[in-house]
Amino acid sequence: MAFSERIARLKSSLIREILSAAQRPEVMSFAGGLPAEPMLPKVDWAQMPANIGQYGMSEGEPELREVIAAEARALGVPCDASQVLIVSGSQQTLDLVSKLFIDPGTEVLVEAPTYLAALQAFQLFGADCIAVPQEADGPELAALRQRLEKHKPAFAYLIPTFQNPSAVRYSEAKRDAVAALLDEFGVTLIEDEPYRELVFDEGSATPIVSRLQKASWVYTGTVSKTLLPGLRVGYLIATPDLYPHLLRLKQSADLHTNRIGQWQALQWLGSQHYRDHLAQLRQFYRLRRDAMQAALLEHFADLADWEIPQGGLFFWLTLKQPLDTRTLLGPALAQNIAFMPGEPFFIDPDQNPGHLRLNFSHVAPERLSEGLQRLAGVIRVAQAEVAA
Amino acid sequence: MAFSERIARLKSSLIREILSAAQRPEVMSFAGGLPAEPMLPKVDWAQMPANIGQYGMSEGEPELREVIAAEARALGVPCDASQVLIVSGSQQTLDLVSKLFIDPGTEVLVEAPTYLAALQAFQLFGADCIAVPQEADGPELAALRQRLEKHKPAFAYLIPTFQNPSAVRYSEAKRDAVAALLDEFGVTLIEDEPYRELVFDEGSATPIVSRLQKASWVYTGTVSKTLLPGLRVGYLIATPDLYPHLLRLKQSADLHTNRIGQWQALQWLGSQHYRDHLAQLRQFYRLRRDAMQAALLEHFADLADWEIPQGGLFFWLTLKQPLDTRTLLGPALAQNIAFMPGEPFFIDPDQNPGHLRLNFSHVAPERLSEGLQRLAGVIRVAQAEVAA
Repeated sequence: MAFSERIARLKSSLIREILSAAQRPEVMSFAGGLPAEPMLPKVDWAQMPANIGQYGMSEGEPELREVIAAEARALGVPCDASQVLIVSGSQQTLDLVSKLFIDPGTEVLVEAPTYLAALQAFQLFGADCIAVPQEADGPELAALRQRLEKHKPAFAYLIPTFQNPSAVRYSEAKRDAVAALLDEFGVTLIEDEPYRELVFDEGSATPIVSRLQKASWVYTGTVSKTLLPGLRVGYLIATPDLYPHLLRLKQSADLHTNRIGQWQALQWLGSQHYRDHLAQLRQFYRLRRDAMQAALLEHFADLADWEIPQGGLFFWLTLKQPLDTRTLLGPALAQNIAFMPGEPFFIDPDQNPGHLRLNFSHVAPERLSEGLQRLAGVIRVAQAEVAA
Repeated sequence: MAFSERIARLKSSLIREILSAAQRPEVMSFAGGLPAEPMLPKVDWAQMPANIGQYGMSEGEPELREVIAAEARALGVPCDASQVLIVSGSQQTLDLVSKLFIDPGTEVLVEAPTYLAALQAFQLFGADCIAVPQEADGPELAALRQRLEKHKPAFAYLIPTFQNPSAVRYSEAKRDAVAALLDEFGVTLIEDEPYRELVFDEGSATPIVSRLQKASWVYTGTVSKTLLPGLRVGYLIATPDLYPHLLRLKQSADLHTNRIGQWQALQWLGSQHYRDHLAQLRQFYRLRRDAMQAALLEHFADLADWEIPQGGLFFWLTLKQPLDTRTLLGPALAQNIAFMPGEPFFIDPDQNPGHLRLNFSHVAPERLSEGLQRLAGVIRVAQAEVAA
């Protein structure tokens, strides 16, 4: 069987295998990024018009595009509805952007760490990914400048607000600095913002695309983290030089995004009941974040360092004694604990041992302490073996 | 802006532009392949469980995969649910198959004519398409053998049952012969069957994949033509050597297909109320097919030849005096008539003038005669100009 050469780059997804193992009901999972089921809003379908069942436009539903553009403008993103493309979850933005820009060997700039599934998509198309180390307030600016001087990336892929996995939110100063650098070097920005609305403090985080003067950009978001992931409704907003190509690529990929999910999203976005739901969601996740922080202090204070996430769904732990955390997966699952090793979030996994991504939205607070105690025990055993 | 080299192959979609023009309410459209809106079934969402809103499996909903496998087995396709992948409309099958097989220059075997959007997807990835002429009962077998002897296509893409655009249904003998040839040359078959259930006679048409002994295959279908296209729910069934790759490509494309549409499809597939709905649909379309045939005899008998379609949604007309039917589009739209020129359904459009694809499901029967009279008038004027 002769497959395309890209199939040699098609990696098995570690997270897929972990999530599969984590489906056993006895497993306590810190692995995924799933919304908490008690917080999935009740939705009503009774008013949906019958003609929503018909084929739709590749661009998406006109009214939904208007609402998304208005919300983005309120964030400072200069755009109108003609720049909005509804996608089948923001994962599809990664597929479309990969098709638009990436040939084998095309350079792409990413954060270290970065979103696992973005790395997979870019590398499937043959990208040569170049990484900029992440600090607590955003990328190392000197490293970013050095990469831009030395390389010609087709785009920079950044997740500046509560990044998956690191939970980092870029500071205002770094947002400005990154925008200035991308303008200076004329590098297109792909800004991925699934977690923007899951924020637990008053910190400001205007999108980087709103600060660009010259560079082209794609801004992408989703209703998966705030409404219902099962709808598979996301969106991208693109500068007019990119939009027509992305639209044709979208048409070729799946004609258009399902209209029933688009209709449901339209019942929520921009409404008061959506704002009320978001307020409840933030309160719920803040309590879970606080419970996780307390349990981590109890069991991990001597094992790891971490920042308290101000948004998103994850803690990112750095072990004081690094080891390849992928080796912990088997022993942890034997104790009915699932977590996400940090290595696969780097373009060079073997050079970046010692991080764990722990989701705090899924496990009920009353079980946290027991779960983290077991996970800490697994780490202590492994570290003792390394030391022996 | 440096795009990937595939963007140079990203064609503007003629049908997209025609459909856009056809949205003016005064336009009578024979262009699209839309289900008739009066026949979109009423669907009920009241019983949908809340957890359908959560993330789902990339493979699709387990129960839906079971039902689809059972229906396929009833057609003679040897498979079980583990071979079924739910996709976001069968257009996505074309994207996944392209990713799996096509590098720039990869040879792909198609029918002449073939489905426009398949050609676009394959060519976007750089396929070198090789065409086999279509006859009234399927491909020219000698030409097919000659192509297989001379070329090494990564796959053959065939639409053997009421093909879009030609409405051809392969005979039983040609199905057997095609399967034998693909087995002999070891060529993978992609069999696309969106129109199988829209059948107006008792003719038999067992899938070609069920006749293969050795070759790998993908069989793909959809609920778009029989239930609701707006759900964006299709499926593929693949041999075990292909399935794991297609699954990972699916995950990278959009994680999974929307679960609300999958849930709705599950309420219908395999049920008595679905069989009742299909019976009504066939009756409705048969009447429209018959009305179209009567109106064509009235206005096109001296202009074109055609077969009466025994299924699907289209008449395929061959002009007795060929001309480039793309040149008719402007004059037809000026008369508020939209149709689909035949040239874009061929890999070499300029060498294949003189066909029109006319949809019969959308225009109300009482308006047909007037619409076809106007279209015939446009053709007569153009032919007179060519002759002058």
